[in-house]
Formats: sequence, C-alpha cells, structure tokens
Amino acid sequence: MRNHWYVTAWEHEIPADGLFSRIVLGEAILIYRLADGSLTALEDRCCHRLAPLSKGRKEGDCVRCGYHGLKFDSEGKCVEIPGMGAVPSRARVRRYPACVKHKWVFVWMGEPDHADPALLPDNFASDHPDWRNLPGYLHYDTNYLLICDNLLDFSHLSYVHPTTLGGSPAIAQAKPSIESISRGIRISRYVYDVPPPPFYRSLRPITGNVDRWMIYDFLLPGILLLHSGGRPVNSAPGDESCTVDLRACQALTPETESSTHYFFQQAHRIDQGDASITQLLYDVTVAAFHEDLAMISAQENNIALNPDAPMLGLHMDAALARFRRLVADSLKSQREVLSA
Amino acid sequence: MRNHWYVTAWEHEIPADGLFSRIVLGEAILIYRLADGSLTALEDRCCHRLAPLSKGRKEGDCVRCGYHGLKFDSEGKCVEIPGMGAVPSRARVRRYPACVKHKWVFVWMGEPDHADPALLPDNFASDHPDWRNLPGYLHYDTNYLLICDNLLDFSHLSYVHPTTLGGSPAIAQAKPSIESISRGIRISRYVYDVPPPPFYRSLRPITGNVDRWMIYDFLLPGILLLHSGGRPVNSAPGDESCTVDLRACQALTPETESSTHYFFQQAHRIDQGDASITQLLYDVTVAAFHEDLAMISAQENNIALNPDAPMLGLHMDAALARFRRLVADSLKSQREVLSA
Amino acid sequence: MRNHWYVTAWEHEIPADGLFSRIVLGEAILIYRLADGSLTALEDRCCHRLAPLSKGRKEGDCVRCGYHGLKFDSEGKCVEIPGMGAVPSRARVRRYPACVKHKWVFVWMGEPDHADPALLPDNFASDHPDWRNLPGYLHYDTNYLLICDNLLDFSHLSYVHPTTLGGSPAIAQAKPSIESISRGIRISRYVYDVPPPPFYRSLRPITGNVDRWMIYDFLLPGILLLHSGGRPVNSAPGDESCTVDLRACQALTPETESSTHYFFQQAHRIDQGDASITQLLYDVTVAAFHEDLAMISAQENNIALNPDAPMLGLHMDAALARFRRLVADSLKSQREVLSA
Repeated sequence: MRNHWYVTAWEHEIPADGLFSRIVLGEAILIYRLADGSLTALEDRCCHRLAPLSKGRKEGDCVRCGYHGLKFDSEGKCVEIPGMGAVPSRARVRRYPACVKHKWVFVWMGEPDHADPALLPDNFASDHPDWRNLPGYLHYDTNYLLICDNLLDFSHLSYVHPTTLGGSPAIAQAKPSIESISRGIRISRYVYDVPPPPFYRSLRPITGNVDRWMIYDFLLPGILLLHSGGRPVNSAPGDESCTVDLRACQALTPETESSTHYFFQQAHRIDQGDASITQLLYDVTVAAFHEDLAMISAQENNIALNPDAPMLGLHMDAALARFRRLVADSLKSQREVLSA
Repeated sequence: MRNHWYVTAWEHEIPADGLFSRIVLGEAILIYRLADGSLTALEDRCCHRLAPLSKGRKEGDCVRCGYHGLKFDSEGKCVEIPGMGAVPSRARVRRYPACVKHKWVFVWMGEPDHADPALLPDNFASDHPDWRNLPGYLHYDTNYLLICDNLLDFSHLSYVHPTTLGGSPAIAQAKPSIESISRGIRISRYVYDVPPPPFYRSLRPITGNVDRWMIYDFLLPGILLLHSGGRPVNSAPGDESCTVDLRACQALTPETESSTHYFFQQAHRIDQGDASITQLLYDVTVAAFHEDLAMISAQENNIALNPDAPMLGLHMDAALARFRRLVADSLKSQREVLSA
Repeated sequence: MRNHWYVTAWEHEIPADGLFSRIVLGEAILIYRLADGSLTALEDRCCHRLAPLSKGRKEGDCVRCGYHGLKFDSEGKCVEIPGMGAVPSRARVRRYPACVKHKWVFVWMGEPDHADPALLPDNFASDHPDWRNLPGYLHYDTNYLLICDNLLDFSHLSYVHPTTLGGSPAIAQAKPSIESISRGIRISRYVYDVPPPPFYRSLRPITGNVDRWMIYDFLLPGILLLHSGGRPVNSAPGDESCTVDLRACQALTPETESSTHYFFQQAHRIDQGDASITQLLYDVTVAAFHEDLAMISAQENNIALNPDAPMLGLHMDAALARFRRLVADSLKSQREVLSA
C-alpha cells in the first residue's frame, strides 16, 4: 500500500548533523535535517552504482555518495559528478514527501502529489504538554499484518498479558463494539468489576476491582490511537484522583514482506513531581509488547511450517477481518490507478 | 512416509505437569501427560490463529491456547472459546495416536485407524532390568536418509570411527550378509582376529585381538536394533567374563526435509557395582556419533554445492539401496491409498 | 568462465603433509603436496557417496576418503576400494591442472587440454628478491563482479579511502587512459600536486604535495597488477630517495555465485633494515580493503532489496563496462565451444 503516510522514525532518532537510514516497504530511505530545521527524505541508493547514500556524508543541505562522490541536493537532484562537467538530468534520486508530527517522522510512500497532510493521524498525545511518555521501538521479524491482527483483538490481553496489561478473562469475554470510520475502524471495549492490572495500583490508590475501558481507532496503514483506563467500581465518574487515564499511540510500518517496525508510546498525565510513573508505564508497555512479540513470532514460525493451513474465523476476528478488507481495498484501488 | 510410528521423544523429556513440543515430518506436535499417567499428542497449532498450543498452559487434562484462550480437551476437541457460548464443531485440532514403549514416546503420523501397536519395534534393551544404558539425543541439520545410509553400511566404522567404535580396516573388508525381514533389513557382519576398539578393554579383561559381531535390524521408518560384541580370539564361546555383549537402539525421525532427530542408547549388562561403565559406553557412543555428524554434514554440504552430482554405486551399498527401495515402496503405496 | 587460471590459495596455505580444500566456481577442490614437492588438485568429492576427500587422510601421494575408505592416486584414479577386488574404471575423481607461480597457487577450471602456462599472469612482485610484502586474504559475501567494478575505477579512492590509500578529490577528477590489452585492460591515472596519503610520509621524507601515478593491468578472470607511487612535486624524476614506488598483485576468485576469495599483496623495495615498512604497508592495505568490503557489502544489500534497479552509466564506468564485455565474450565463446 503506497499511498499512505508511514511512521519511519521517532524524531529524536534523526541526528542533528548526520544521515539516518531506514527500510520501509522494502525501500531504503535516507533522512537528514536541513539548515532550516526541516527534514528531507531521499531514496538511500545512489543512481550510479546503487550504493547507500547514508554511507556517504552530509555537505550542507546536500549529501555526497561515499563510493564515487556524486553529490545530491535535498530534492534528490545530482548537482556534482567528480570529473564530469555537466550533470545529466537523469542523475537524481527519488525524494519522498516527509514531515514531523508530534515526534513521529512520517514518510509518504506513494505519488508525491497525493501526499496530503490532512491524512496524518492525530497522534497528539506523543507530544502534548499535559501528557507524559517515553518513546518506544521494537523490531519484528514477521509480516506486519500478523501484528495488526494482534492489535485489532484485545481479547488476547487476558491470555498474553495476564500480569502486565491484562489481568482477567473478562476482557476476552466482553464483546467490543466495532464501527467503521474514515480509513479505519473504531473499537470500544468496556469491562466491569474486574481486578486491575498490577501497574494500575502504582498509578492510583486502587485496592479493589475496577471498571475498565479501551477505546481506539485503528487506521490505515497500521496506526493505533488508544484511550484506555479504569476506575474503582462505584467511584464517582468525575473523580480523577482514583482514575487511570491513558493515551497510547502505536504505528506498524512494514520494513519488508517479512519484517516490521513498531513505534509506540503510552502517555499519562499524573504529576508526581518526578518521572517514575512515566518510566513505570514505559517498562510495563515494553514488557507487554515483548509478550506479544514472543507469541506472534511463535505463530509465524508455525505458519511457516505449513503456509496453507487455514485459520478458523471466530466472532473475535470481526475487527481484524474488517481491517484486512480495508487493506485489500486499498491495494485494489492502487492497482486500478496503476493500470488506468 | 506417514503410516509409521515415529520416535518423538525420550519419555523423561515429557514433563510431569507441563507441555512438550517437537516437530516431526514438518508438523509441530504437542505432548503432555494426563491425570491417569498416559500421554496425549495433539497438533501444536490452534485452529483459530495457528499459534502453538505449547505456548499456552495445561488445565487439568486440557490445554488452553495462550493467545486468545481457546481450550481443547485431550482428544483435540475445543471445549471453550472465551466470549462465545456454543463452540463450533469445526473447532478442533488433530490428535495423533501416541504411546510409550521402553522409554521411547512413539507418535503415529498416519491415519489413526492404522495405528497398530504390533508395528512398534522391539526396543526392549532401552528399558530392561538386566540392561543398563543412558539415553542420548542428537539433532542433525541434514535429511534423514543420509543418516540411514550411514547406519546401513558399517564399513564406515573403519574410517569414521577408528578410535571409537571401529579400530581396523578389516571391518570394511568383511562382507556382511543381508536379508529382508518384515518392514526392514537384517544385516550381519562378523570380523575375526582384529584389534578391539579401545573401550572394549575398559569393559572386559581383553589384551589381544578379538572376534567381533554386529547383527542388526534396520526397520522402517528408521529404527536400528543392534546386537554387537566381541570376545578374545580362541576364547570359549560361552565365557561371558571376557565377552563384550551390547544392545543398541537407535531411531531417526525426520524433523523437516532437511533436519532429523536422532534418539539412541547403547546398553550393557556388566555389573561393576557402579555406573562408570554405563557412563563410559554413553560417552564413547556420543563421541562416535559426533564423528558421524561431522562426516554426514560435510557430505551434505558437498551435495548442496551440486545437487545433481551422481553417486557411484558399489558393493557396500547393497543394504542402503535396498532400504531406499523400501522407503520408495512405502511412499508409493501411500500415494495409491491417497489417490484411491 | 571456466577456461582460466584461478588463484586458489597462497602457497603457504597448503600444508607440508596435509589436505587443503577451497571452493572455486562452486566446486570444492582438494590440494595437497606430492613427495616431489609439486601440488596436485583434485575434485574434493568422493565419487562414491560424495563426501569431501579433504576429511580423509593423505597416504603417500594418495588420498583416502574418510567415509568408506576409497583410495585415490594423485591423478584422481581410485586405486583401492575396501572389500572389493577390482576397482571399476569409473571410480575416479576429476583432476585439475594446477601450478604455483610467485607464491600463488593457480588452478585451471576448464578443459585440461587448454591449460596453458603462458596464460598465467605476471605476478612477479609477490616473490621477487628486490620486493618485500606480506600476503593478504579477504573473504567477500558478494558476487565477484561487484569487486571487479571497484578495482576498475580508482575514482573511489577519493571517497572510500580518504585517509588510507586516497587523500584528495583530485584522484576522482583525473581522467585515466584506458587501453585494451591481451585478455584485459590497462588503466593509467596520473594526479598532480595533491596531498599524499598519510602512509607515504612513513615511507619517504615527504612533507608537501606529491605527483601520483597508478598504472595497472586488470586481466581475466579477475587479476590486478598495479604499479603505483608518487614523489614530491618538482622533485627530480630519478630520485628514488623521495619516491614511493609500489607493486601490488590482487586476485579475485569466485567461490560461489554470491561469494568471492580475494588474494592480495602490496610490495615495496625500501630497505630500512627491518620489517616495519612491510608491516605498515600490509596494515594500510588491509584497512583500506575493509573500507571497500564495507561499501561493496552495503551496495550489494541495497541491490538485493530491488535487484531490478538500473545503474546509471557515467564516464567513470568506461573500464568496468569494458571488462564486463570481456567477461560476457569469454562466457559466450565458452558456450559456443560447448554447443559445437
């Protein structure tokens, strides 16, 4: 799926004065900062002998290939070939539309004309004065759709995350509501009178059971925007002092057919005067996401043993089946554009 | 070859209260103990999203998937799906006939109706009060037929195992007798007046040359049952005090097209009041089998360089050529059953 | 390309009384010394079960397979099969013409009749009383043509080797002369009034800029014979005391389609009474060749992401384009011979 914004990095990953490279959809992309503070994203492959430009060096707003010295400007145009007077106009590398929004570096992988900033997701909580978080990253050696599947069905919280994010079979038993939204799906799941996940008790004075909610949008190409939380059973609806209220942003970006980048943060707004809660929330999130990684890797290994084994569709697959249709539709319309 | 019993584990590998998994013929198999002490063997792949059930947990005689919580009984029938009242009858995983015989866990990979315990090999020496041994296991990254070839021609003892199991070129020069038996081949090789392998001298008071015998059945799918030994030249036939008398059981089980499980033991009945001889015998066997592993891996690497290189058939290949025909016949009759 | 001499080893790699094996063009080759001091090169694959003969043992001028004991003479003829009276005439392995010249072990991979010593390159500097050097070897996990490309265009010295062999963009800006020679190309590049590479100052009393020259033959299948050096601007032409004068011999030998052996040395004739200059020259050469290895590996990884990406031909590719035509011509005439 090319006509989408893909999260390619956390902003802090791009060095102040160096070259950054990451593979997205099987293409190596070079990202670096210009003098005006903006970013440029270029094909990380010299048009001459296909060496990665990221192995060269930045010269002002230009990049020079480290193999034979071709120099490209921030638009991807070759502006110098050592020992050659005129530079042929075909000497250029592709430039990708790129922008930073709330600490995520987005790259548009499709036709540049269609790169509409209005299509960027609203990941405000990653960079909002009221919300605190630490940025996270995981690399998966699996196809990104298996990870989308995971995120589209939170019933797994009961079994994959019993001591981290989950805590009760009631999560799996609750039936979420699923609605279609623009370029995605909204999923809302409420669970009542259940033990809280252990980390809740470190955030708020919670002793007994809680009511929990998990409300999220899952958007093409693979963005999750989550509002989750809980509060003691029978507590007053507006009482923030005992309410856990979290905002998570997660992005799945295919690296290749068989590997995926995973960018995530989980934000809170509890001010205890230090960063301990932020760190705790980061640690529990990373621990939980490693639980997913272990399960999804085991699942993919099993699938690799027999790629033709059928999956049995169940009620809990409603959202992920719907999202796979969105992916299929997006690919279909892309093919129609290409063949038109 | 599906309609065979395959050794899948040593009995001690199956935990008292946990889940064990091993890949056989490219299929992941879950094995666990029931309350009555028997074993069950199930497809280690949830019918829902194909996660390995072995990553879940045992609940009584049932197993619950660790991804979305489906629960299966010991027959493979799904008996609970979280959040779903009725369980569809299609929700089940395959059950494999399984049994334990003389410490080997056998799984029947073919049609359950054909799983006849009478077809189990007579591996009595692995678990007989008169015979002592230690169980061994090796993993091969080669196709199992190359290892069968090795075991079907003991002439290699002269060259691969000169200081462990072999000891003399006379072994290779001796001509074994080969006869067909039910589902296999019986091979008998006698060698006279040769130096003993060094470990013989640790077992019995042997100083000079010995007469040796190696008599074994090699059975489909890849089971070796060996009676071997030796005694000083001109010693009295019935004199056990100077006779080395061994019983080995070995099983080759294909893991995938290109990897193999190897289960083995070599048993003796010399009572010296401690376990030192048992340990010595285990150590020399493991050392020798690593000599085979090195040679067969080198052989397979060579074949991989040019998979079309022909082998030159020689007299010493009589048994292995005959066994490869048994394998081909077994595959042929299997295909005929499938197409009928 | 089969009808060529390939460098297969440095002479010192062949043990005095053991077996040496290396893969060339996808074929495992066994090399060992005969009693008369000469070498023999045989197919390292027993004709029986395809085990590598190099895992066996040398017996006089013969080699015995370590699997089932077949014994081959230095011509590749099987002279003994354990337990078999007559040896069938088909029992033999291929013998390759082989010779040593100036410390390089050459093997002829084509039809033996065409193995003409006159086709051996003149690598005299590897073994000449006036010239000192240390032999080097690197293993590449890339196709050998990418490394040939590198060696056929020294403009990369300005960018890949700025602190080792290079030192100035002027190298890339200089236009080399390129002429066709027998079975190869002669490339001459002169660069005037440039800073010397740092190691020059350790070889000679050089303080300011130098004039440099790099004159080399690049011959099929992948041999580089280089005369390079430099001397202070305006120094007297014949003044050896301030002149750096080097002779390098390099050989690229395909191991497989995707890996390459690289043999090299760089020789000087500056006598300082110790080996420090020889060591320095070796160290700077190895450091520089690791710079190439890093760049070429990165280039190949990039190509692997999209094998169909086109390269843009530029003026600096003249020599390598011409060499690729020589390779194509050699392959073409080989096919014509085969189909005739």
